[in-house]
Amino acid sequence: MSYSRIWLLSALMVAASAAQAGSKEPIQPIVAAKVKSPAMVELGKKLFFDPRLSKSGFISCNSCHNLSMGGTDNLKTSIGHNWNQGPINAPTVLNSSMNLAQFWDGRAADLKAQAGGPIANPGEMASTHVIAVEVLQSIPAYVAEFKQVFGSNTVDIDKVTTAIAAFETTLVTPDSRFDKWLKGNKKALTADETAGYKLFKDSGCVACHNGPAVGGNSYQKMGAVSAYQTASGATGRLGVTGKEEDRLLFKVPTLRNIELTYPYFHDGEAATLTQAVETMGRVQLGKKFTDAENAQIVAFLKTLTGKQPSFALPILPPSNDKTPRSQPFSK
Amino acid sequence: MSYSRIWLLSALMVAASAAQAGSKEPIQPIVAAKVKSPAMVELGKKLFFDPRLSKSGFISCNSCHNLSMGGTDNLKTSIGHNWNQGPINAPTVLNSSMNLAQFWDGRAADLKAQAGGPIANPGEMASTHVIAVEVLQSIPAYVAEFKQVFGSNTVDIDKVTTAIAAFETTLVTPDSRFDKWLKGNKKALTADETAGYKLFKDSGCVACHNGPAVGGNSYQKMGAVSAYQTASGATGRLGVTGKEEDRLLFKVPTLRNIELTYPYFHDGEAATLTQAVETMGRVQLGKKFTDAENAQIVAFLKTLTGKQPSFALPILPPSNDKTPRSQPFSK
Repeated sequence: MSYSRIWLLSALMVAASAAQAGSKEPIQPIVAAKVKSPAMVELGKKLFFDPRLSKSGFISCNSCHNLSMGGTDNLKTSIGHNWNQGPINAPTVLNSSMNLAQFWDGRAADLKAQAGGPIANPGEMASTHVIAVEVLQSIPAYVAEFKQVFGSNTVDIDKVTTAIAAFETTLVTPDSRFDKWLKGNKKALTADETAGYKLFKDSGCVACHNGPAVGGNSYQKMGAVSAYQTASGATGRLGVTGKEEDRLLFKVPTLRNIELTYPYFHDGEAATLTQAVETMGRVQLGKKFTDAENAQIVAFLKTLTGKQPSFALPILPPSNDKTPRSQPFSK
Repeated sequence: MSYSRIWLLSALMVAASAAQAGSKEPIQPIVAAKVKSPAMVELGKKLFFDPRLSKSGFISCNSCHNLSMGGTDNLKTSIGHNWNQGPINAPTVLNSSMNLAQFWDGRAADLKAQAGGPIANPGEMASTHVIAVEVLQSIPAYVAEFKQVFGSNTVDIDKVTTAIAAFETTLVTPDSRFDKWLKGNKKALTADETAGYKLFKDSGCVACHNGPAVGGNSYQKMGAVSAYQTASGATGRLGVTGKEEDRLLFKVPTLRNIELTYPYFHDGEAATLTQAVETMGRVQLGKKFTDAENAQIVAFLKTLTGKQPSFALPILPPSNDKTPRSQPFSK
């Protein structure tokens, strides 16, 4: 069975699933996160913003998943320790709790598993879990927070990543204009935007980009209909499963807040939404959108920008004489 | 007249000045900033956090003057474009409006003059004023804010730096324990802390570290009494005035929030407050503090941590098809 057939089948299954659920639309509104432990979220927020989790003391989770900029760095591929050029585009952290797995190739099962990766990746934050924990363990105010949240004075990487994931789970973006439209406010979209949404459904985009996150819930081949040309060496799911059939299968990215999360694709090669829609039509759907159609789809996509997480910039507890020092210029 | 004599004279003048003013203490409480134009401050806050003012799209004002970390990067010297190792320690932006001038060598008269420097410094943000303005001018939401604040749709570097300076002027840190003590709450400090303050005054530290910011209001020679050994090539005021007598004269740093703004000195070579107090005693005062004295002074210094600026992380308006792209890996 070819990928385009798999895709057609998927589209039918999505439609059937939506019909079964009694829903008229293949996209559902995003629901604001329920916070289970506010104290854990606060701790996770501090850790997310703390560059001392990196070897340099300069790079935090927020450096590449910048919550001022849609939870991304808006770069083709990210900058890591010693200005290392990363191999892949940083996906947004917004609504990432809805992904079926984390990273483009899904190699981390969940946000907790993901959070430990960049800290110890030599090309990203370039620290080690041991040193990151030593740093936090040396800071009394952090230890007190870990005690409050986890009931133990002992910091470990499991607690660190649990807290970061708890914060990240709160980073959902409800109340987009499209969600208002879904909930019945038909004035929330313009005629061009609703036409774009109709095209988005009728053309088959919705086969992969569906659900509350408008994506994030399946792996699909980049270049399902015709080969995608790229200089990127990323192999996608193949690297995780070892199966040749998984070559160039990537997690379908969420389209929520897509206006904010440029540039697009795993290689960041599409600088604009217009380019991204053109390429997707061509390599995934075998379709050439007219300029007017492309513009309508782009207009629809821009209605997916939701309310961005709003919170006070965290103030981090200072290091002290016992805290291991950052090593910014050590390679 | 030797520097130590100048210093002694300064100490006497400070004491006289304090007496004239009817104040008992050479340090005054910090007063919260009065915001003249909230809209300008909001615009300046966005610009302060916007990495698109850098060539890479990765470095913002907040990268090196991190408001989660006392308005500094907590590095000996800063990381710039392409991981360039900066020549000097990044001074805190907190309370910087009280400085007699900006940068360690005072080469910028005020915060507005300072703000344009790093944007165009090839070793820091590595952009140009022209490109930075082009980026902002291309973004309708920014243009609307400039229009609201300045009454003009035309963005220019003068407006950009005016807005950044307006935001920075709000970054004062009142309500430290020491300020509470100054205002009459004698229980705000412990016996060790008040003993440390007495030592701070009696030993002569207060000759240079006085006023509301506990510094920032004079240039002094690093190594007034005995030579300061450093690998740093920074020459201080000499580079501004061209006068040999200004060699190694630096702006006296504020001691407000000093617990947060490690490491210390223009070269960042003092990793801890204990080291900083030891060195200052030796090279500025010709004095060797006992371990107990040093600890008391450090205890006093830690009472200078004020209420940190608290505000929601700004959400930045997105770039669009017309916005000049960041060049992270272009040298």
